[in-house]
Amino acid sequence: MSFNLRKKRAAAAARAAGVDALLVAHLPDVRWLCGFTGSSAVLVLPSSSLKASRPTARAVLFTDGRYIAQAQAEAVGTRVVIATKSPLAEACEWIASQRVRRCGFDAEQTTVAALDAMRKALPAKRRRSLFVALGPLVARLRQIKDADEIAKMRAAAALGCRLFERILAFMQPGMPESAVAAQLEHTARLAGADGMSFDTIVASGPRSALPHGRATSARLPRRGFVTLDFGVLLDGYCSDMTRTVHMGRATAQERVAYDAVLDAQQAGIAAVRAGAIVGNVDEAARSVLRRAGLDQWFTHSTGHGVGLEIHEDPRLAAKRMERLETGMIVTIEPGVYMPGSFGVRIEDTVLVTRTGCDILTSSPKAWIEL
Amino acid sequence: MSFNLRKKRAAAAARAAGVDALLVAHLPDVRWLCGFTGSSAVLVLPSSSLKASRPTARAVLFTDGRYIAQAQAEAVGTRVVIATKSPLAEACEWIASQRVRRCGFDAEQTTVAALDAMRKALPAKRRRSLFVALGPLVARLRQIKDADEIAKMRAAAALGCRLFERILAFMQPGMPESAVAAQLEHTARLAGADGMSFDTIVASGPRSALPHGRATSARLPRRGFVTLDFGVLLDGYCSDMTRTVHMGRATAQERVAYDAVLDAQQAGIAAVRAGAIVGNVDEAARSVLRRAGLDQWFTHSTGHGVGLEIHEDPRLAAKRMERLETGMIVTIEPGVYMPGSFGVRIEDTVLVTRTGCDILTSSPKAWIEL
Repeated sequence: MSFNLRKKRAAAAARAAGVDALLVAHLPDVRWLCGFTGSSAVLVLPSSSLKASRPTARAVLFTDGRYIAQAQAEAVGTRVVIATKSPLAEACEWIASQRVRRCGFDAEQTTVAALDAMRKALPAKRRRSLFVALGPLVARLRQIKDADEIAKMRAAAALGCRLFERILAFMQPGMPESAVAAQLEHTARLAGADGMSFDTIVASGPRSALPHGRATSARLPRRGFVTLDFGVLLDGYCSDMTRTVHMGRATAQERVAYDAVLDAQQAGIAAVRAGAIVGNVDEAARSVLRRAGLDQWFTHSTGHGVGLEIHEDPRLAAKRMERLETGMIVTIEPGVYMPGSFGVRIEDTVLVTRTGCDILTSSPKAWIEL
Repeated sequence: MSFNLRKKRAAAAARAAGVDALLVAHLPDVRWLCGFTGSSAVLVLPSSSLKASRPTARAVLFTDGRYIAQAQAEAVGTRVVIATKSPLAEACEWIASQRVRRCGFDAEQTTVAALDAMRKALPAKRRRSLFVALGPLVARLRQIKDADEIAKMRAAAALGCRLFERILAFMQPGMPESAVAAQLEHTARLAGADGMSFDTIVASGPRSALPHGRATSARLPRRGFVTLDFGVLLDGYCSDMTRTVHMGRATAQERVAYDAVLDAQQAGIAAVRAGAIVGNVDEAARSVLRRAGLDQWFTHSTGHGVGLEIHEDPRLAAKRMERLETGMIVTIEPGVYMPGSFGVRIEDTVLVTRTGCDILTSSPKAWIEL
């Protein structure tokens, strides 16, 4: 989808929400709409109630002096204004100077202080009525990935899988978790990643019971689980995958837990299709662990959307009623965590299709003993 | 400073702001106050108007099921509650159940939607009056680093300097910028860093004119500048430094620009001391570039605070009137950027002292030709 088409869709959503313009300050939304990747940006998107023939009907990107060259190179087709004050304040002044009666903003991405500053940038008589709190209109559009985005997500996921294969050959008992993370991240960089999409998790031995156990100086055990949860940033898009492998011989209890998590993960994947209710996908995975008597140790939700951001909507959590749609990309990642003892998590990133899903992270999930 | 002392100071600031309790949801603030490093947390800090003898006078950390073990291990001396709904909603319900009449929150870190959710978690009759928008009370305390923090910042800065020395020997014409970044980041990881404090900037040749030119596949030139701006995360704290080196022989214009930026940077550093007005530090650096006829190409501010976050207050920007204080740690980083041609930036991180400052990033700044 071209940036112009994305802007048109967002403008249509703004129009449907009853506003003449949308103020977009969340950086991933700005990037998605116009291609600009800098760290300081506010995009103002007129909805069609401003006549298309007037120059103001074009989107305007406000950034600062650090990004003069970059904004012009990246935000092709968008008017760029280099703010001498703050981009937010100048965007608001510009909005006030136009025939905009109501301008929407994303209440989930706008702080109370920012809204105050936005209002203070307006003439006094317009402060009460101009800005209208809306939901995350652009983030909602971003849930459905277009062909270009799917290709990028596939490439990111494929790189993640190659990294996993290569790290298996590198891991040795006694090696610090941080050395495993370092090797993984270095290989990612050399393969073209811009970085990692979140702090790499290498949680070994009893630390595998920490769902978010970032790599530390703890050493890989002779016998015990190692959970690897990592993602690359490739061309702006995030990959996300988790595999849990075992160093040395496992106990029967460890095997039982692993098999239950794998069954739960596969049940979650089997429940994914366009139209499925996200709470039901969560329940499909959770009920497998319940039957195994392990659900009390599954202390988080089953998954989340991924894209330009590592955590996007929809959230695949108990009792949530949103429906999956074709083109959404979500994770399926049940786990069990026995504090002080061990933990297992298995996670794939999948593309929702009309009849099921397409698994983007194709690394094997069968039991691996190193 | 112990976490208890930090909590006491924050409680005193809350009391001075006229509230009985403070709701802290910004993760670096939570970490600074109680030691918890997880990604989901709300800390409620009663100020002393709740009697110290009651159990509710203790701070309470709300997190979720992923962090049961970690919260107990890290947030020693803080009561931990594992929320089954959202930590924010349960924190608000708990506040409403206590004798709290007014609870402060940080308007700069609370979204309009979060405030709405906070109010909805309260009984209807308390929705209008309970929550009070305050400034960043905890972030303001965090500007002054204590001895423990200074030691960590010194260690992070020293690691940055070692990485710079080592990367010089690695850089070769024709090598992609991303390979330089990869090597730097890998060395950082192996030396114990948890990661980088921001996306590594390796901006070479004409790309050095991009103040925020993250490393790309562009190749280091035979002749031209390379700007390296990077930081490590070590024990939670950020380092930040920039050096610009030249590959091959420079033109006279390049040398003039480099010398002017170095003079400006040293003038900025010379202006730093407890009591100095931040706008004057900015002006000290900027006026050197003005005299050299280069100030139109210095398109950003002179520096910013650093600590648990890479960008903290104070901002060392034109006309700002805040004063530096002993124990603040700030960057001094003027630059000039000639679009399409070249750019130079030199940055140190310095500790503000009574009579001047202590430069934490001790790498040489004299002209380097590779």
